[in-house]
Amino acid sequence: MTGRLAVVGLGPGDARSLTPEAAAALAEAKALYGYAGYLDRVPPRAGQSRHPSDNREEGARARAALEAAADGPNVALVTAGDPGVFAMGAAVCEAIEHGPAAWRTLDVAMIPGVTAMLAVAARVGAPLGHDFCALSLSDNLKPWETIERRLDAAAAAGFVLALYNPVSRARPWQLGKAFERLRRHLPGATLVVFGRAVGRADERLAIATLAEADTVEADMATLIIVGSAATRLIARPGLPPLVYTPRAGEVGP
Amino acid sequence: MTGRLAVVGLGPGDARSLTPEAAAALAEAKALYGYAGYLDRVPPRAGQSRHPSDNREEGARARAALEAAADGPNVALVTAGDPGVFAMGAAVCEAIEHGPAAWRTLDVAMIPGVTAMLAVAARVGAPLGHDFCALSLSDNLKPWETIERRLDAAAAAGFVLALYNPVSRARPWQLGKAFERLRRHLPGATLVVFGRAVGRADERLAIATLAEADTVEADMATLIIVGSAATRLIARPGLPPLVYTPRAGEVGP
Repeated sequence: MTGRLAVVGLGPGDARSLTPEAAAALAEAKALYGYAGYLDRVPPRAGQSRHPSDNREEGARARAALEAAADGPNVALVTAGDPGVFAMGAAVCEAIEHGPAAWRTLDVAMIPGVTAMLAVAARVGAPLGHDFCALSLSDNLKPWETIERRLDAAAAAGFVLALYNPVSRARPWQLGKAFERLRRHLPGATLVVFGRAVGRADERLAIATLAEADTVEADMATLIIVGSAATRLIARPGLPPLVYTPRAGEVGP
Repeated sequence: MTGRLAVVGLGPGDARSLTPEAAAALAEAKALYGYAGYLDRVPPRAGQSRHPSDNREEGARARAALEAAADGPNVALVTAGDPGVFAMGAAVCEAIEHGPAAWRTLDVAMIPGVTAMLAVAARVGAPLGHDFCALSLSDNLKPWETIERRLDAAAAAGFVLALYNPVSRARPWQLGKAFERLRRHLPGATLVVFGRAVGRADERLAIATLAEADTVEADMATLIIVGSAATRLIARPGLPPLVYTPRAGEVGP
């Protein structure tokens, strides 16, 4: 065993959602790696080196962190939300599988965190209150046809959907196509929640129906929840509505 | 506005996974409600009343907490994992929708937490590293046929599956049936992770193939992750293997 690599989930953005386990892993690290935008959330600490990188270089970032850990020091690789959900966890495992044998002897710890869909759901009620799927709309690494097939399967079977990576500058049309696809399976009144940067200063929430859901509500920092036909809205006087999916998960009698 | 109800996610069980936001909500509460087994994880505090209840009375527990909050004091309703994932969040929303109008004026805050599938996934690597579904195997509130339909749809479309509530004393056969069903769609070599009581003293992890997965590995405190055909295992000398699903989420070339 040489070094240690902790892949740390920072949660949705607010320091109040950082677990003590994650905070301890950050405090113990001699070197911090991560996308610059996420590293900025971690206050500087004496005796720690910082290695920010570009957002799109996941593989290179994972390998750099593993190389540093193999050299001996405690390394933390930071990621937003949870490392295991559309984040650096899988990229690190991929790098270990295809990298030098020494990387298989490293002490690798994944530190879980509150992933975006949980934070967005909590803000509006309990839209993930029953069976649900988490699906990335990015077709950078998988064919768009696979995404359409999964949208079809999930919506037709009555799962609520949490859509990660709905849009980026290089992927402007995918979300609109996804909404079109979902309209084949779900009533126009199906509830859609747009949650942007939840827990951060520029947080924005919007609730729409699938018939009227507009892709302009979404950017790279947005997580979208598309309800099932069973998902409901409770109007409240002077308060934002609650959106939830009943525990039975079926359209009620 | 009368009182406040915080529905607090305790995370998987270890105090190191309790977020500062959840800890603050517990500290501010005048009355604590929850299943006795979860309430036991919250240290007693002077000036706080405690109202433990039985595990199966979710609706009654939600109504009792809402009634107490409507009387004025700050109330916290504790739940394991995340309140929005197969926990009390949806039960509270149901109670509000069908309860007295005054409950719609309450300040209801859902405090997210690390749900079991994230904790189990982190322990073994990144099996949820690509598109996945979360599905409850409990047929207490939905027909078993609905569960089979969702197992079929999710497995056939290439989602990884996180199975909540796999077995209980009253539901002994459902998990075996679910494995049978999944074997129709997935290779026998598909990886299955059993994660029991992760983060607690009696934690137990097991990795099997779908062909050999045995329901005796599971009890009420177990969360099961069934990989897709793309999910992989990395053997490591002297260390537990890593299980992960590549970011492409497809069977590799």
